[in-house]
Amino acid sequence: MSEQSKGYKARAQALVSKMTLEEKALLLSGNGSWTTHKIDRLGLPSIMMTDGPHGLRKATGPSTADSVPATCFPTASALASSWDPELIRQVGVALARESQANDVQILLGPGINMKRSPLGGRNFEYFSEDPILAGRLAAAYIQGVQSEGVGTSLKHFAVNNQEFERMVNSSNLDERTLHEIYLPAFEISVTQAQPWSVMCAYNKINGVYASENPLLLEDILRKAWGFEGFVVSDWGAVHDRAQGVMAGLNLEMPGSGDVNRKKIIEAVNAGKLPVARLDEVVASLVAVVLKAAESRRTGTRFDVDQHHALARQVAGESIILLKNDDHILPLDAGGKKKIALIGAFAKEPRYQGAGSSQVNPARISNAHDELVAILGGSERIGYASGYDFEGVTSAELLEEARQQARHADVAIVFAGLPDSHESEGFDRPNLDMPEGHNQLIDAVSQVQPNTVVVLMNGSAISMPWVGRVKGILEGWLTGQAGGGAIADILTGKVNPSAKLQETFPVRTEDTPTAIEFPGLNQQAYYGEGVFIGYRYYDKKKIAPLFPFGFGLSYTTFDYSEMTLSASSIQDTGSLTVQVKVKNTGKVAGKEIVQLYVREEVPAVSRPEKELKAFAKVALAPGEEKTVSFTLSPRDFSYYNAHLHRWAVNPGRFDILAGGSSRDLPLSKSVSVEAQVAVSTLTRESMVKEFRDHPKGKAFYSRLTSIIMGGSSEEPGTVKRTLQEERARKKAEMSTLVFVNDMPAYKLIAFSEGKFTEQMLNDILAQVQ
Amino acid sequence: MSEQSKGYKARAQALVSKMTLEEKALLLSGNGSWTTHKIDRLGLPSIMMTDGPHGLRKATGPSTADSVPATCFPTASALASSWDPELIRQVGVALARESQANDVQILLGPGINMKRSPLGGRNFEYFSEDPILAGRLAAAYIQGVQSEGVGTSLKHFAVNNQEFERMVNSSNLDERTLHEIYLPAFEISVTQAQPWSVMCAYNKINGVYASENPLLLEDILRKAWGFEGFVVSDWGAVHDRAQGVMAGLNLEMPGSGDVNRKKIIEAVNAGKLPVARLDEVVASLVAVVLKAAESRRTGTRFDVDQHHALARQVAGESIILLKNDDHILPLDAGGKKKIALIGAFAKEPRYQGAGSSQVNPARISNAHDELVAILGGSERIGYASGYDFEGVTSAELLEEARQQARHADVAIVFAGLPDSHESEGFDRPNLDMPEGHNQLIDAVSQVQPNTVVVLMNGSAISMPWVGRVKGILEGWLTGQAGGGAIADILTGKVNPSAKLQETFPVRTEDTPTAIEFPGLNQQAYYGEGVFIGYRYYDKKKIAPLFPFGFGLSYTTFDYSEMTLSASSIQDTGSLTVQVKVKNTGKVAGKEIVQLYVREEVPAVSRPEKELKAFAKVALAPGEEKTVSFTLSPRDFSYYNAHLHRWAVNPGRFDILAGGSSRDLPLSKSVSVEAQVAVSTLTRESMVKEFRDHPKGKAFYSRLTSIIMGGSSEEPGTVKRTLQEERARKKAEMSTLVFVNDMPAYKLIAFSEGKFTEQMLNDILAQVQ
Repeated sequence: MSEQSKGYKARAQALVSKMTLEEKALLLSGNGSWTTHKIDRLGLPSIMMTDGPHGLRKATGPSTADSVPATCFPTASALASSWDPELIRQVGVALARESQANDVQILLGPGINMKRSPLGGRNFEYFSEDPILAGRLAAAYIQGVQSEGVGTSLKHFAVNNQEFERMVNSSNLDERTLHEIYLPAFEISVTQAQPWSVMCAYNKINGVYASENPLLLEDILRKAWGFEGFVVSDWGAVHDRAQGVMAGLNLEMPGSGDVNRKKIIEAVNAGKLPVARLDEVVASLVAVVLKAAESRRTGTRFDVDQHHALARQVAGESIILLKNDDHILPLDAGGKKKIALIGAFAKEPRYQGAGSSQVNPARISNAHDELVAILGGSERIGYASGYDFEGVTSAELLEEARQQARHADVAIVFAGLPDSHESEGFDRPNLDMPEGHNQLIDAVSQVQPNTVVVLMNGSAISMPWVGRVKGILEGWLTGQAGGGAIADILTGKVNPSAKLQETFPVRTEDTPTAIEFPGLNQQAYYGEGVFIGYRYYDKKKIAPLFPFGFGLSYTTFDYSEMTLSASSIQDTGSLTVQVKVKNTGKVAGKEIVQLYVREEVPAVSRPEKELKAFAKVALAPGEEKTVSFTLSPRDFSYYNAHLHRWAVNPGRFDILAGGSSRDLPLSKSVSVEAQVAVSTLTRESMVKEFRDHPKGKAFYSRLTSIIMGGSSEEPGTVKRTLQEERARKKAEMSTLVFVNDMPAYKLIAFSEGKFTEQMLNDILAQVQ
Repeated sequence: MSEQSKGYKARAQALVSKMTLEEKALLLSGNGSWTTHKIDRLGLPSIMMTDGPHGLRKATGPSTADSVPATCFPTASALASSWDPELIRQVGVALARESQANDVQILLGPGINMKRSPLGGRNFEYFSEDPILAGRLAAAYIQGVQSEGVGTSLKHFAVNNQEFERMVNSSNLDERTLHEIYLPAFEISVTQAQPWSVMCAYNKINGVYASENPLLLEDILRKAWGFEGFVVSDWGAVHDRAQGVMAGLNLEMPGSGDVNRKKIIEAVNAGKLPVARLDEVVASLVAVVLKAAESRRTGTRFDVDQHHALARQVAGESIILLKNDDHILPLDAGGKKKIALIGAFAKEPRYQGAGSSQVNPARISNAHDELVAILGGSERIGYASGYDFEGVTSAELLEEARQQARHADVAIVFAGLPDSHESEGFDRPNLDMPEGHNQLIDAVSQVQPNTVVVLMNGSAISMPWVGRVKGILEGWLTGQAGGGAIADILTGKVNPSAKLQETFPVRTEDTPTAIEFPGLNQQAYYGEGVFIGYRYYDKKKIAPLFPFGFGLSYTTFDYSEMTLSASSIQDTGSLTVQVKVKNTGKVAGKEIVQLYVREEVPAVSRPEKELKAFAKVALAPGEEKTVSFTLSPRDFSYYNAHLHRWAVNPGRFDILAGGSSRDLPLSKSVSVEAQVAVSTLTRESMVKEFRDHPKGKAFYSRLTSIIMGGSSEEPGTVKRTLQEERARKKAEMSTLVFVNDMPAYKLIAFSEGKFTEQMLNDILAQVQ
């Protein structure tokens, strides 16, 4: 804990010691929807929280549409596609300045839940299907916001992966999957960036509400990761308030009047909630309130234009070029070619999602007007709306679109998901865009061979027309300046450099959760285990539409020369990996270099490879850079559910590097040796575990002989046919397997007591 | 309970009342490997059990290869492919006669575990991937054996689906999957056929050993299903003997001398095991011992030739014709065409598996010699071995095979899985045959366009050469008379009539458990839930190599006219379905008519369809029959894990009929209406549940208004742009979802107590 944190904590404890029980209980619920209670008597102020994460939503009325004007940055799907922590840090700084200017102390974000299914209704607010990518980007976001004296609230902790009946659903998963997939992004964020608060999720985890879950809130978050801030309930996530306090839920939001305050007081008076525990929980909250109040920068302003420009820059770094046959992009900006812009999203973009993150944007740009501005006039540009607000088309709209497309040299169709198709609160039923959007693309591509599709959607979609268009830009929900950014990329002002943070599958049935998503009947079984996203498509050898980590550029990159700092390391050491990447094209560009690790012979069923590091590298034409990564023991580990900790299985690991999860031209292998002690033999250990144990192997033949016996037959004395010999061999083979798999204690009963408990204990004593 | 059973039970209880504690404990473990203890003082005899299930394995020595000669019938994979309960009943009768002739009182079988993965090492001993098919066939087997005064032991109870570390592994699955997939075959067998004993499995179920699992052994087996026999441990499955007695494990096998006997006595003396419970557990065993002893038919014999003939007949009904392009089969028996038999399995067949079921066959037939016999001489028949005992081939062996194939008119390649590739004790790593077998088929099919493959294997395999051969016979492990049966089918003496009891997938990665099978680290997570076998391939829209229920004939069948007894039924009623099937070819044949049910809009994620009934129908050329099935409420139900019972979700159901799971030409739909009460509204019910409840809906708007409020705005008084209006609409939509999904009790806190606990209770009182 930092000296500063210690100071706030000590002051908070001193304040708590002066509080009455009623004051403590008062503090643990909000004062209305957005603020904490103050205690004038003790000089403790109130602080304000507002929704994020990609823009400030400081309420001005009861509807979530009523809020102060603020810069709407790209949503998390888009931001994460930049794979650029520094850029995301800058977004954090800007968001914090808007918060300070509005006297907001904590911005509710970032959201970093894993995209277990591409159908999750809130995926647009989340970074990735990969925990390392999500965690590193979230840490940068938090650092950015908090560097300006504004707190963050990391959400939704944890295993919050569906919208359907989210307040009652239980996310049921095994311990290894929890630790390998659903916790690491939180762990990285907390340990690297210490968010001022963490927001607990609505759902249960294995039957226990996140809002009263001691495993998550106390054992993991505070004890294992050293979290110093406070935990706030997602708005309405409280189930049993006193249980929540016991588990470590500091603040209930929104306020519940005196409803839950009374329950806390009753629990204390009934002796069910120790005062010492209550004091701890209040003090953690008060410490942050003190820090937040002192970090206020009242009267500051932010530069609306500068933030709009930043939003445009960030969007440009987030839009992915998925397909570019015949170099159809960039458009020839200075030329004479006619361009048909088709689809209402060209003029009325979908640029953000619905729900708590809905920002009232300071301004909105659209691709149509921005293209007119860049191309210097509208005479080259045609337009047809193609579909209505719900994504429905008609014969007339399609004909109009065909007309425009026919009379142009290139058609750009804007399509994606309308508001009604993707929102907080519900999950998508499948990967499909509205039929009207797909029909429009079909209609246009039939009359215009030079068709480019620009997509606006918060998460993966299917593209039945993928083979019939030349270019595809994944525009995501790119915020208020997305229109400008799309124009920048279409015209080559910006060279696309983003890559997919989530896999685009071919069809809904291919997804890891296709057998059931969302979980119905209030139970979601995470049967796919650690195999979500690319981990699943790799394991099942299913070709995705576009793989995780994929994205094109207007230039090309070449990878060469991987070097490892060692060919063999200890499981307590580290490994440095260097790769060379070169811009082999004619324009400047940025490449996202990705490093994956694969265990060659794992002890448990592991993914074919896992992302462990990445770097975004800017390269002038012809320029080459060496990128360096350091891998720690954790990067080779799996979570061993027997030992309840991360562990390395000694053996060979492949280090793979390249520009996409399915294009990894560089690879080398390293041997990792074990320093950690071999697991202990016990009476429950199987006979084969004795064989494989350095000290146990001396006793192996003694243990097997208890059942196998010695042959009482002199060799060659019994004449058998070849078939009889084979039958005998087959029988022996299955008996040996039987004995090998038998736990040692069973030999006592099996031998009818000839092998005794005492003999087993003697052996166990000798193998420790 | 039958009068006879009551009589044995009363006599058993009387005997137990005379026993000392030591005698009771003595009885609960075996006397050595195969018999129970006797008590001369009370006139209680010993009984003998021996392995099955497809032949008697009465031990004559320590190796499982040492046993009395007995008829080796086809293993369960083959038997079940007949889809013929009557035929399997006859096999049961024959097995019982061999048991009686050898003074064996209980035959250990049948094995009916679900084929969760095609890689399960013991799949050859199990019937199917479908619980209804497995259950109905097992019931027939049990009825057959027990009709001759010999007991059965239904195994392995339960959720025993992998061989890897089977004595320590925990099968972890949710309640619905347990009840819908892994229990019904046991349930059907127990309720329809009352096996004298049930054998508990080695594994744990959700962490609790099957051998001491009160949920399985007491609550489900005895209380819910009314099981009257005794539970025996799989050989060595006992973990904690006293816990086992408490849970209802009657008999430990093999005997453990005085090791576990002492533990039972200690537990009783320590007050941990009530004497009343001990007495119950002893009495259930003694009742069966009395019945078994009195059912003895000492001095009987069985007809070896007749059983061999039955084994041949059964094998002929079990072998599946998977492919028959250009009518390559049957071979022209009376003609002059030269036939090359290639592959050592033609002379040295693999006809059974390894492990506890390994029979010492009375005789063995092979396809080569049987074909020579049928075709009347060997001049038309060439032979090349093609590979060695382990399935390894060589350039020489391949060349010899090519020579034989070239000089023949048709080549028949015998291939499959050698002993070393498939056995009790380990699981297969993938679906592949040995490379040598695949290479041989490739080599032969390259030089001989008329190539037929005959397979010998206990479970599904991949067939990379499927498109390069004209005919495929799935010969399974068809027992000692399989060679004759193969010859019968190849020459048309028998018209193939079997169908797949398990799906043949294209590749290992397509299987439902591809992400992890077997479960490592002593934990197997049944993440695919109810979606095993065809249920998975249907749901994921993965085309199998050959689907469940598929099999060809030398004739053709036509389906017509489905009639339902009603267009709408109550969930307490039944439905009769009739379909017509006609033999439209030129030879007599048998068709397996299959009936599946699909729920149109299920409340939980259900399979696309599920097998509910089937019938094997013999038809002369041109003959048509009407087949009638009766569906019960259970056939429309799913297991509701909330209610902990089977329940029908009212709505429409499709009834589908045809000759394969993927060829169902007939379908009609029926409406099922609910008689069972609508679920009760509670304070935990979500607001939308009030909306959907007949009495609750009156309160819906009151509940939503607590959060949504009424608009304080006069319509039209606030001027907004279209975009602003849309933003407002979007916000309202997400708020409504939020409120609908909120459990009612949360409204109290959310309203800051304006909506009170009392108000909620008042509403709840009015909706009951």
